[in-house]
Amino acid sequence: AECRGSALAADRSLHTFKAFCELNRVLATAETRDAGKLREKILTMETLNPHVKAVEYAVRGPIVIKAGDIERRLQQGVKQPFTEVIKANIGDAHAMGQQPITFLRQVVALCCFPELLDSPAFPDDAKQRAQRILQGCGGHSLGSYSASQGVECIRQDIAAYIEQRDQGIPADWNNIYLTTGASDGIMSILKLLVSGQGSSRTGVMIPIPQYPLYSAAISELEAVQINYYLDEANCWALDIGELRRAYRAAKQHCQPRVLCIINPGNPTGQVQSKKCIEEVLHFAYEENLFVMSDEVYQDNVYSPDCQFHSFKKVLYEMGPEYSSSVELASFHSTSKGYTGECGFRGGYMEILNMDPEVKAQLVKLLSVRLCPPVSGQAAMDVIVNPPRRHEASYTQFTKEKNSVLGALAEKAKMTEQILNSVPGMKCNPVQGAMYAFPQIFIPPRAVQEAQALSVAPDMLYCLKLLEETGICVVPGSGFGQQEGTYHFRMTILPSAEKLKVLLEKVRDFHLRFLQEYSPQEAPVRRTSQEHSET
Amino acid sequence: AECRGSALAADRSLHTFKAFCELNRVLATAETRDAGKLREKILTMETLNPHVKAVEYAVRGPIVIKAGDIERRLQQGVKQPFTEVIKANIGDAHAMGQQPITFLRQVVALCCFPELLDSPAFPDDAKQRAQRILQGCGGHSLGSYSASQGVECIRQDIAAYIEQRDQGIPADWNNIYLTTGASDGIMSILKLLVSGQGSSRTGVMIPIPQYPLYSAAISELEAVQINYYLDEANCWALDIGELRRAYRAAKQHCQPRVLCIINPGNPTGQVQSKKCIEEVLHFAYEENLFVMSDEVYQDNVYSPDCQFHSFKKVLYEMGPEYSSSVELASFHSTSKGYTGECGFRGGYMEILNMDPEVKAQLVKLLSVRLCPPVSGQAAMDVIVNPPRRHEASYTQFTKEKNSVLGALAEKAKMTEQILNSVPGMKCNPVQGAMYAFPQIFIPPRAVQEAQALSVAPDMLYCLKLLEETGICVVPGSGFGQQEGTYHFRMTILPSAEKLKVLLEKVRDFHLRFLQEYSPQEAPVRRTSQEHSET
Repeated sequence: AECRGSALAADRSLHTFKAFCELNRVLATAETRDAGKLREKILTMETLNPHVKAVEYAVRGPIVIKAGDIERRLQQGVKQPFTEVIKANIGDAHAMGQQPITFLRQVVALCCFPELLDSPAFPDDAKQRAQRILQGCGGHSLGSYSASQGVECIRQDIAAYIEQRDQGIPADWNNIYLTTGASDGIMSILKLLVSGQGSSRTGVMIPIPQYPLYSAAISELEAVQINYYLDEANCWALDIGELRRAYRAAKQHCQPRVLCIINPGNPTGQVQSKKCIEEVLHFAYEENLFVMSDEVYQDNVYSPDCQFHSFKKVLYEMGPEYSSSVELASFHSTSKGYTGECGFRGGYMEILNMDPEVKAQLVKLLSVRLCPPVSGQAAMDVIVNPPRRHEASYTQFTKEKNSVLGALAEKAKMTEQILNSVPGMKCNPVQGAMYAFPQIFIPPRAVQEAQALSVAPDMLYCLKLLEETGICVVPGSGFGQQEGTYHFRMTILPSAEKLKVLLEKVRDFHLRFLQEYSPQEAPVRRTSQEHSET
Repeated sequence: AECRGSALAADRSLHTFKAFCELNRVLATAETRDAGKLREKILTMETLNPHVKAVEYAVRGPIVIKAGDIERRLQQGVKQPFTEVIKANIGDAHAMGQQPITFLRQVVALCCFPELLDSPAFPDDAKQRAQRILQGCGGHSLGSYSASQGVECIRQDIAAYIEQRDQGIPADWNNIYLTTGASDGIMSILKLLVSGQGSSRTGVMIPIPQYPLYSAAISELEAVQINYYLDEANCWALDIGELRRAYRAAKQHCQPRVLCIINPGNPTGQVQSKKCIEEVLHFAYEENLFVMSDEVYQDNVYSPDCQFHSFKKVLYEMGPEYSSSVELASFHSTSKGYTGECGFRGGYMEILNMDPEVKAQLVKLLSVRLCPPVSGQAAMDVIVNPPRRHEASYTQFTKEKNSVLGALAEKAKMTEQILNSVPGMKCNPVQGAMYAFPQIFIPPRAVQEAQALSVAPDMLYCLKLLEETGICVVPGSGFGQQEGTYHFRMTILPSAEKLKVLLEKVRDFHLRFLQEYSPQEAPVRRTSQEHSET
């Protein structure tokens, strides 16, 4: 290039310059062509692992990528019909302004920088927790690898917590495994369970709608996905008849070996009754299914008529015939509840009735990744071992906890109410978790337009919502839904004031959308008026 | 049981009691038998995912599990021929007593508990780092999920660090991906690359000896492992002729698509010359191989004759024909270097020349697990953005860093020297990383005994070493070695005093072992005397 530059400097006539440019272009093209011939990329869409290609994860899918692009453009000063992108696509509490629980952060900071153990600014109970955790770490440092199953004393604290939660039903810390968030635990257990070929390939039963980690893991592991549909007309209840139907149908072409449950439900927000859990466990017992119960929202129950029952507790109450035989893995996380500590990637699983040899294989598998992040383990420890009534931090901790959970309960109710006030929208009660999953009416003309664009109708809807309002929600098609129905998932995490504005914007958008795609304009306006008269 | 108890109380004659016990026993057996008939476990060694079964990971394998058992027994007061188990099996610096770098922990603690930003006990440069990181986090909280690729400003800091490290060769932060330790990044890239069936199945070239994450990942992903042997007689150098031989042989039964390099070497401790790296890159270019360069020990170079050259830098120095086409992923970690922060699970990868569509697929795959631990990302940020000369923490930071690296250099030399003083042991110089990998002579009688027990001869050796001395090292068979040669891997991480004692114990054990398995006793004693005379 330097040589060419000198040649250019030597002869400045325009004609020569143009010829020079043309020559350069020709050379460059030839170079590219030659390079193209010689060099094909090794890793292309054609050679990529096909199971990776098959993975889909809507919670951070195309809509969210687009939201990021719009956000960047806003920051660069590009005008939009809104001033802010609101990411209601993901259960990420702190990103939505929720404040961390002081006690948890004190303990983790003390573990990170033990010199603070001498600081009078930190309460004794936080110091005691930190000291206990550090005692359990190699070299008393958060920087050591822990055992692959996690720090021993944290596993003991978790077992004690489960015992207390389940009114004294015993929990053995040898059955506890710390994980990198719940996702990592779910992935590890599914990995163990996938085997066989053709009609003996492992089938995994998952609820529809589901949290798309499950379908993504099933794709990646080449297992067979078996859908059982939750009953939207009945507050997203799990119907045992539907479970049987799905099982029988799947039996024809795979070997159903795993039953996944999400309780409280994600994205559907229902809380399962004890009776329902009993039926599910009885079914799993009868049909020899390994039960995976995703209970990461166990602290997020808002409806006064509902109560969280752990699968473990119900299993034990069904008697030793069940409790000594049903293979069960239950998952929990630091990311949800009232702490919302997603970034720490903390979590654990309790595994019951697993064959001891298989357990050794699980530990071997986990050991390849060495250990879950130890700071996340410390965060998990605080959640299972919070300040007690007589301790210094109890009052502040309780106030903070109740404030978060109280606000979530109010926002759950407000979300349901406002969404149900919109014509062409229907939202089941948000009994628990942190999402609303309303059904939305999409006019046939919009469905046709989406089909012409080869996108799901609710994807079109959510894209337009994002572009017009800056609100980012996830289309129901990313979670699965009954054919011909459309939904979106939104979190209830923004502050109450912001959430109200957001919901009103969603309402206005929806009305505009109905109008835009209505056969004539008039009927939509009528519907809106009808509603405001009720 | 209560009812049976009452019955027992009502009739205390011994005869009745015995009959009662017998009845109970019969009932219990029948119950077990029935249960056995009804319930077979779903997840057994027979139904377990066969690829999980195939995984092996010696660094936390049987020897280490046994070491844990012995440690527990020691704690319970069971007498052993030693008072302490020393885990020299894993590069876990803090567990061996290395102190954390103060500045790193200050920054992470500040990020965890931002109230400390007001504390005069923390230096300004640490506060500035923490504020910058928190600015990049959703809601300014370490508790938010980051983008799946990692926090943007941390990726920018990493790119700036790479540019500086590589003397100005440009680094684009869009090519940087934060990971959960290096292992997670390596696993993700391999996952993309595995495809095809039969003779078109992806082959992955790995050095032998290797770090067993590679073989474990290859087993789990069902790829084909292609061994290229490092040249032990030549300080474990990578010989390009051997690379060609391995490639050609593998071409017959698979599609070699990936070339893995570990530099500085693990477990072998060699540091590759620039010339060697050029040859490797030229070979990869010629044969269309995706290069994965594991450079987690880039700060651990001790030999004054050696220097770390990044694959990226050498690639760019080879000219645009190479630098614009060779697909390269390079891995780094918080766990090694002078920080040794294993527990935070921090790391990153830089990816060059990846097809943009494939990059989008990678981000999708990473997004299923949401994000790497944000505290680990923060730790990574400190490593790439340490205090500068004019900043408050510079002096202390530099002192701590030099102290760790200086001690490691001394221990590397001492380890090599003492091991080479043992008859029947030969250790290459520990030029870098944190391990010695000596070759050990195992007498034929010991080999026969091991074969009779169906264990590898060096496994037998390491088990005996553990049982007799409490020293836990990993058999060479867990890393791979030329047939008929035996090795073990030990870390150089214990304090100099402790390491000296450890090495002397290893020497004494080795002499006893030679003696125990010698054809007659006399020759060994002679060897030992010969040695002490030199």
